[in-house]
Amino acid sequence: MDTKKLEILDSTLRDGAQSHSISFSVDDKIKMVRMLDEFGVQYIEAGNPASNPKDEAFFTRMLGTELKNAKLTAFGSTCRKGVEASKDDGLNRLLSAQTECVCIFGKAWDLHVTKILETTLEENLRMIYDTVAFLRENGRRVFFDAEHFFDGMKNNRDYALRAICTAAKAGAEVIVLCDTNGGSFPNEIAEYVETVKEALPQGIRLGIHCHDDCGLAVANTLAAVEAGAVHIQGTFIGMGERCGNTNLTTVIGNLQLKRGYELVPEMSVGKMTEAAYYTAEVCNMKLASSMPYVGSRAFSHKGGMHADGVIKLRESFEHISPDSVGNRRSFVLSELTGRTAMLEKLKGFGIILEKGSEETLRVINKVKEIESEGYVFEGADASFELMALRELGKLKAYFKVVDYKVITSQADEENAPASAMIKVRVGDRREITADEGKGPVNAIDKALRKALEVFYPVIGDMSLVDFKVRVVDNSTSTSAVTRVLIESTDGHDMWTTVGASEDIIFASMAALTDSIEYMLYKKKVYNYM
Amino acid sequence: MDTKKLEILDSTLRDGAQSHSISFSVDDKIKMVRMLDEFGVQYIEAGNPASNPKDEAFFTRMLGTELKNAKLTAFGSTCRKGVEASKDDGLNRLLSAQTECVCIFGKAWDLHVTKILETTLEENLRMIYDTVAFLRENGRRVFFDAEHFFDGMKNNRDYALRAICTAAKAGAEVIVLCDTNGGSFPNEIAEYVETVKEALPQGIRLGIHCHDDCGLAVANTLAAVEAGAVHIQGTFIGMGERCGNTNLTTVIGNLQLKRGYELVPEMSVGKMTEAAYYTAEVCNMKLASSMPYVGSRAFSHKGGMHADGVIKLRESFEHISPDSVGNRRSFVLSELTGRTAMLEKLKGFGIILEKGSEETLRVINKVKEIESEGYVFEGADASFELMALRELGKLKAYFKVVDYKVITSQADEENAPASAMIKVRVGDRREITADEGKGPVNAIDKALRKALEVFYPVIGDMSLVDFKVRVVDNSTSTSAVTRVLIESTDGHDMWTTVGASEDIIFASMAALTDSIEYMLYKKKVYNYM
Repeated sequence: MDTKKLEILDSTLRDGAQSHSISFSVDDKIKMVRMLDEFGVQYIEAGNPASNPKDEAFFTRMLGTELKNAKLTAFGSTCRKGVEASKDDGLNRLLSAQTECVCIFGKAWDLHVTKILETTLEENLRMIYDTVAFLRENGRRVFFDAEHFFDGMKNNRDYALRAICTAAKAGAEVIVLCDTNGGSFPNEIAEYVETVKEALPQGIRLGIHCHDDCGLAVANTLAAVEAGAVHIQGTFIGMGERCGNTNLTTVIGNLQLKRGYELVPEMSVGKMTEAAYYTAEVCNMKLASSMPYVGSRAFSHKGGMHADGVIKLRESFEHISPDSVGNRRSFVLSELTGRTAMLEKLKGFGIILEKGSEETLRVINKVKEIESEGYVFEGADASFELMALRELGKLKAYFKVVDYKVITSQADEENAPASAMIKVRVGDRREITADEGKGPVNAIDKALRKALEVFYPVIGDMSLVDFKVRVVDNSTSTSAVTRVLIESTDGHDMWTTVGASEDIIFASMAALTDSIEYMLYKKKVYNYM
Repeated sequence: MDTKKLEILDSTLRDGAQSHSISFSVDDKIKMVRMLDEFGVQYIEAGNPASNPKDEAFFTRMLGTELKNAKLTAFGSTCRKGVEASKDDGLNRLLSAQTECVCIFGKAWDLHVTKILETTLEENLRMIYDTVAFLRENGRRVFFDAEHFFDGMKNNRDYALRAICTAAKAGAEVIVLCDTNGGSFPNEIAEYVETVKEALPQGIRLGIHCHDDCGLAVANTLAAVEAGAVHIQGTFIGMGERCGNTNLTTVIGNLQLKRGYELVPEMSVGKMTEAAYYTAEVCNMKLASSMPYVGSRAFSHKGGMHADGVIKLRESFEHISPDSVGNRRSFVLSELTGRTAMLEKLKGFGIILEKGSEETLRVINKVKEIESEGYVFEGADASFELMALRELGKLKAYFKVVDYKVITSQADEENAPASAMIKVRVGDRREITADEGKGPVNAIDKALRKALEVFYPVIGDMSLVDFKVRVVDNSTSTSAVTRVLIESTDGHDMWTTVGASEDIIFASMAALTDSIEYMLYKKKVYNYM
């Protein structure tokens, strides 16, 4: 292997599944495998067929499926104490997954052998040897995850080294040094990787598997690579037990973009942000906005001087170009922003204003006024654009909501729990109608569309993609300000609007009406008002 | 300074305020100053009086206020190009903050001088010298933030060093090396810190200020400390421009607990988790559950083997004891958990079950059933305990909600937007009443308490602390499942309950009724049913 080439084993579907609140269905797993394969990681550790029926079902579904770039890898543990490898139920289920590669974890920390496994140090070595040898006999390529390797080295260096040498002797092709508890520091990692390089026979590849309990998983991985590791384990966006595993997107950004290593095909790096969002979606979690390289705020500038600087010269406040990872620069509006960033944002919408002009001041004052009510335009560009257009007298309302009532009660077999009545005015015509829904917001959403479609049938093409509710100020409990973000689409474009109020229904109405008005405006629909 | 003693400058209120979606009021700032001072950081960088009126008002409010441990520090930039320091408006406003210490940033990267400031390299050095000298003449202790120092070293090493030597010569007591764009790696940081140590006169303290754009802020800070830096800048829980600043809780955990340095009083480390939550609350953000040391999941075990292991022997899957930072171990319930962890959790509530018993199975099945409806008991221990008690026949309901209706309409001067009618039954008595509120949830909350207080007056002692709404499955837009988490208190204890439903009102009702029932049960109130 070229020294500048590194291999990745993505464990999102295995170690990542040990993250709290993540639970993959078989279909989710298949989606992730497709994405990771397209993206170009070399190994996808997709589950432990012996630990739960869902993973077993997944591997059965995958039988015979061809992947383009990646090798599907099944994960399991060494055979049980006192049991021959060939008779071990777990190992036989691992074989039945029929993957070319398997990743096996075994104990390298003497304390774990005696206190957790409750067996002898010799028996553990026997388990490691027999397991790897048995899998090799059955034609598998074996990666050996030396669990707690670094803690093992601190406690009983000789034994930790014997454990990995045993796996190597039995035929493991990669020895993966695991910082299972995430307690190690980069200098320790580097030192032990050097030691291991000396101790192992030539031709064995070294791997690294870190956890983020000290906030050092990425740094530890880099230290291991510098010391000679070539196989990197982690999860795509860092999820995993406790504080998470090594975040692979961060490692790829650091090593491939900034240090000249090759981890994935060059084209993939430019799609990394998209892949990260896709992963978050499959995991049903929010991608942390501050995540290096791929987070929505990784290239977001708020301080006035930062925003001004980056407009003059990109590299003045960006360590890499956001394009290189498929991310985008953005500016956050606030009292720290300065006008340049706001004007830059408006320019993006085609609204050109002069820095010192009276119009600019008017828009800025409106933003301040409306933000003091709990609005935040962050992430709701459509509402921001509408606000500016209204303030500048460039947008005439398409309709007026004259009245509404929403009634929620205990559901029974016949009735949905919520029903809504709405009255709208368009020009001099009024429309009053009603609808029901699964909750008050759903009911008012349906009623509003029903009323407006009478005038603007194009609304029928529009649908809601995402609906988010956030309580802004927790201190006043159930009467706190609620912010509602709505993402809509007409099949081509997507846009996001916001509403905020102490009344969740009112906040939802504001976001919904903005969303509809935005579409009508963008499509240049004839305005009947 | 003892080599094992380090100083902290917390910039939550200055660089942290540049984080998107954070906006501190003057009162928020005062709350944070009090907390940080109690916690024992040495310097609190609390704002830039010249950049915005809010910070100026804050420093005016603080005039004459005595702090126990910390020095309030005002932040500002060098004087403008072509302007004498004594005539610079910004510097004079900085002086008017009347803080003993000031932190001044100046350019150390030649590119920034010529392209962003658009001045000559010599003029920038003049600005640095004059600024620091002027502040010293006015009796200030000066910390010099060398902005973009590491990028400067890569581009024009000689100039970067001249910039900091100029500040030192003019009387700065600390030279802070800033990785402003967050693009540097630990080995570069270490190398440049070593170089600077040689270049600067004896007696000048070295500081480090990192950003997390490569996920390396903590590692870079550690590398700088190892190379000789003694002054650490960061934000308490890592917030800041783009990907954030160095997370001080992580640094304190790493260096004080694991490397024997002293950064804050020993007692404070044990209160770090509480301080982190407090900070998140003042910032109105959610503390990342995966945050090292202080996150709610930092010691949370999901994998069955991990949970079993940690119950046998703490250190088997924890790099430090959660108590040492005031955090708690927890177990996540899932298909990976195994029963041991769940039984352990129930044991914490005083419910002792046998591993293989029929009762255990019943509770497990109930958890599975209820979680498939979108419930997650994570963080809602009170609801989990009630569920188990009910399933085991150990809890008799205290009341029954027979019917409710909530009506929301456009608000007018006379009426709140939402009103709720509720009918409850307790024993053979019924109570029907109504109330109004700022939104539908607030209205039903008030009506429910009003109805139940007739039977159980003790409910009057209880109040809501926190109310959180989360949309669980975004894919079905306004009819998605909504999860409501409610935290309540009776003045002594706090407890959290959960409700989930497609109807936000129904979900809120479930969390509210659980919350009330939990209090009645815990207080052993006589049950009239």
